[in-house]
Amino acid sequence: MYDLNTLGRKAKSASRILAVTGTAVKNAALLAAADALLAHMDEILAANSRDLEAGKAAGLRESLLDRLALSPDRIAGMAGGIRKVAALPDPVGQLVEGHTLPNGIQLSKVRVPMGVIGIIYEARPNVTSDAAALCLKAGNAVILRGGKEAFESNKAVTKVMREALAGTGLPEDCVALVEDTSRETATALMRLNKYLNVLIPRGGGGLIRSVVENATVPVIETGVGNCHVYVEQSADVQMAADIVFNAKTQRPSVCNAAESMLVDAAIAEKALPVIAEKLSAKKVELRGCPETCRILPSAVPACEEDYDTEFLDDILSVKVVSGVEEAVAHINAHGTGHSECIVTGSYEAAQQFTDGVDAAAVYVNASTRFTDGEEFGLGAEIGISTQKLHARGPMGLLELTSTKYILRGNGQIR
Amino acid sequence: MYDLNTLGRKAKSASRILAVTGTAVKNAALLAAADALLAHMDEILAANSRDLEAGKAAGLRESLLDRLALSPDRIAGMAGGIRKVAALPDPVGQLVEGHTLPNGIQLSKVRVPMGVIGIIYEARPNVTSDAAALCLKAGNAVILRGGKEAFESNKAVTKVMREALAGTGLPEDCVALVEDTSRETATALMRLNKYLNVLIPRGGGGLIRSVVENATVPVIETGVGNCHVYVEQSADVQMAADIVFNAKTQRPSVCNAAESMLVDAAIAEKALPVIAEKLSAKKVELRGCPETCRILPSAVPACEEDYDTEFLDDILSVKVVSGVEEAVAHINAHGTGHSECIVTGSYEAAQQFTDGVDAAAVYVNASTRFTDGEEFGLGAEIGISTQKLHARGPMGLLELTSTKYILRGNGQIR
Repeated sequence: MYDLNTLGRKAKSASRILAVTGTAVKNAALLAAADALLAHMDEILAANSRDLEAGKAAGLRESLLDRLALSPDRIAGMAGGIRKVAALPDPVGQLVEGHTLPNGIQLSKVRVPMGVIGIIYEARPNVTSDAAALCLKAGNAVILRGGKEAFESNKAVTKVMREALAGTGLPEDCVALVEDTSRETATALMRLNKYLNVLIPRGGGGLIRSVVENATVPVIETGVGNCHVYVEQSADVQMAADIVFNAKTQRPSVCNAAESMLVDAAIAEKALPVIAEKLSAKKVELRGCPETCRILPSAVPACEEDYDTEFLDDILSVKVVSGVEEAVAHINAHGTGHSECIVTGSYEAAQQFTDGVDAAAVYVNASTRFTDGEEFGLGAEIGISTQKLHARGPMGLLELTSTKYILRGNGQIR
Repeated sequence: MYDLNTLGRKAKSASRILAVTGTAVKNAALLAAADALLAHMDEILAANSRDLEAGKAAGLRESLLDRLALSPDRIAGMAGGIRKVAALPDPVGQLVEGHTLPNGIQLSKVRVPMGVIGIIYEARPNVTSDAAALCLKAGNAVILRGGKEAFESNKAVTKVMREALAGTGLPEDCVALVEDTSRETATALMRLNKYLNVLIPRGGGGLIRSVVENATVPVIETGVGNCHVYVEQSADVQMAADIVFNAKTQRPSVCNAAESMLVDAAIAEKALPVIAEKLSAKKVELRGCPETCRILPSAVPACEEDYDTEFLDDILSVKVVSGVEEAVAHINAHGTGHSECIVTGSYEAAQQFTDGVDAAAVYVNASTRFTDGEEFGLGAEIGISTQKLHARGPMGLLELTSTKYILRGNGQIR
């Protein structure tokens, strides 16, 4: 059995040092790590080639191989990502609130690091440097457990980063990779409560369900998005078509892409053909309710399951609804609480939708594709939380911190 | 098998209504519930008598019977607690932040209810009304699962509260009691992800460990407190004695009571006898390291385990340390991240301690007993979080809410 305890103990001990390390030192370490990725590009590319060869031999899909592949440009992008994190404001030490208690104790609530953050992810080696940089900037040690397909690449990237940290005087154990990709070790990591303060899974639905099911460490659930665009009867049809087209087709493989469209019966005859015509340019398959199929002969009948499916592909489920109330109820029953949109000209409908829909991001007349840390102005993101505890929606540096109360007295007793 | 799914589904459906219910209606419902507890006092006391008889027959300890017992005064206290919650500001709808994105989308982050909150607790029936009132005020439906010792009392209290809610037009399922106290049903509740947004255990270490171990629903870990008072060498000895005495003896059975004292070697000869003398008034047993036992013949030798034990009794472990660094390391290794105190005259030692100690509340020259929602000015508390995710320290109404991004556009696409 792989020795996670030693890894955890070292990370915890590194986190104690990192928690009291100033911003300037953390930034210098991040910039050194970015430089080191560029300086060791050949070594990283060679490791990546080994992953790619093994992946080809194992018959990985072309799309997976593409996600796995590094290039000088992609490594430069990873270094650039680390530099961007270094340039962000440091959340640690922020005074969140404070007041003096009636007994004279001065209470303040300050932002502190989480401690040790675990990240479980799949095949993209760029997540390794991204996640490590964000955790480190927020004062946390990180334990990374990437997919086995990217194991050699992840080893090379973390080795280079660890050496760079050590070179600037920080403990190399601020960034640790679990050098065993077995399922048993992943499960053990999910139960490493003694050392891990939080665990963030980044990946597909299967990975996230497995973490939620097995973890005893506090988890932030991320990323599954069954997102809807609802075309209300007062919508501008052209705007609706543009938003649905963008939300569905601009990048179908991501969690904030639309998977389902709801259309008011009162506007369906007029809107559906215009929207379908627009989507036909990208050959989007429409899976519709009986009313949709009646209006659009090109649509195929949807089954119940289609309304619960995150296709991540050029497929859109479609349903004709009676109005806002049915739309909100459908979304709350079938959505995953990620990003939901209404296209409308009605003030009342917009209010009813934003009040009633239970999701991380609720849009009026804008594409669901904007749910993203960078777009929201957070600088960078570690993932998009679809749970309600701790963080909801795109998570930036702030969401990688906790708080601590400090109480300064002069002998008060109760 | 008890039908938790129906209970969950009803609570979820009630939570949708509650989430869009205004403050005035929620307050009216709370006041009606408070009145109803008083109006149905006889019924509640009768139910409580049945619990007490069963408890006596089962040989429950006197202290447990005392916690279980209701009286007209205690029921009046419960009603008063609900009225206080009604008087608190409503966190729902607060604008947390907002700005306009470069593309013109108006982004706002608003406070919304969690949805459905589960509370698992032990023998105090007053937790039933307290927890229900706090959850309801923050717009959440609540599923309560109390200890079997208080089952009849809990049933009576929730019945009265549900009727009062229904009388004011709110769904009675805003407050639900799991009417089965088997372990299997408790475990099933911990895995009711489909309906529960968060689960809060309130009780002893065993209950909390069981929830952390078994839950797949997001959990807020509460309340275990192995709290230290550290007497630094520059401390005012009289202040140290007063703070240790208060933290240890004012209410030994609670989580913010001190369980361990650390004393600098340089002040041990002077301070230990004064502190021991003060504690002897309450017959506190001191379990000390060899150096403590040398200085205090009345102390008994401590074993390693004593430094990891939450005694909740008139027992204090004592250790002589070399200085701040050792004290901080000891606390971070043995503490539970609850409340920690330094008594000192040194600015530098105070800074080193507050920076270095990893706990929800870190005190300089004040008793750990102040870690409490009411004392901190939160109005009331649902528990004290000892984890770093979501909330840390006393949790009030704000900690029973989540947030939602609302984005208002005029056709923006990405």
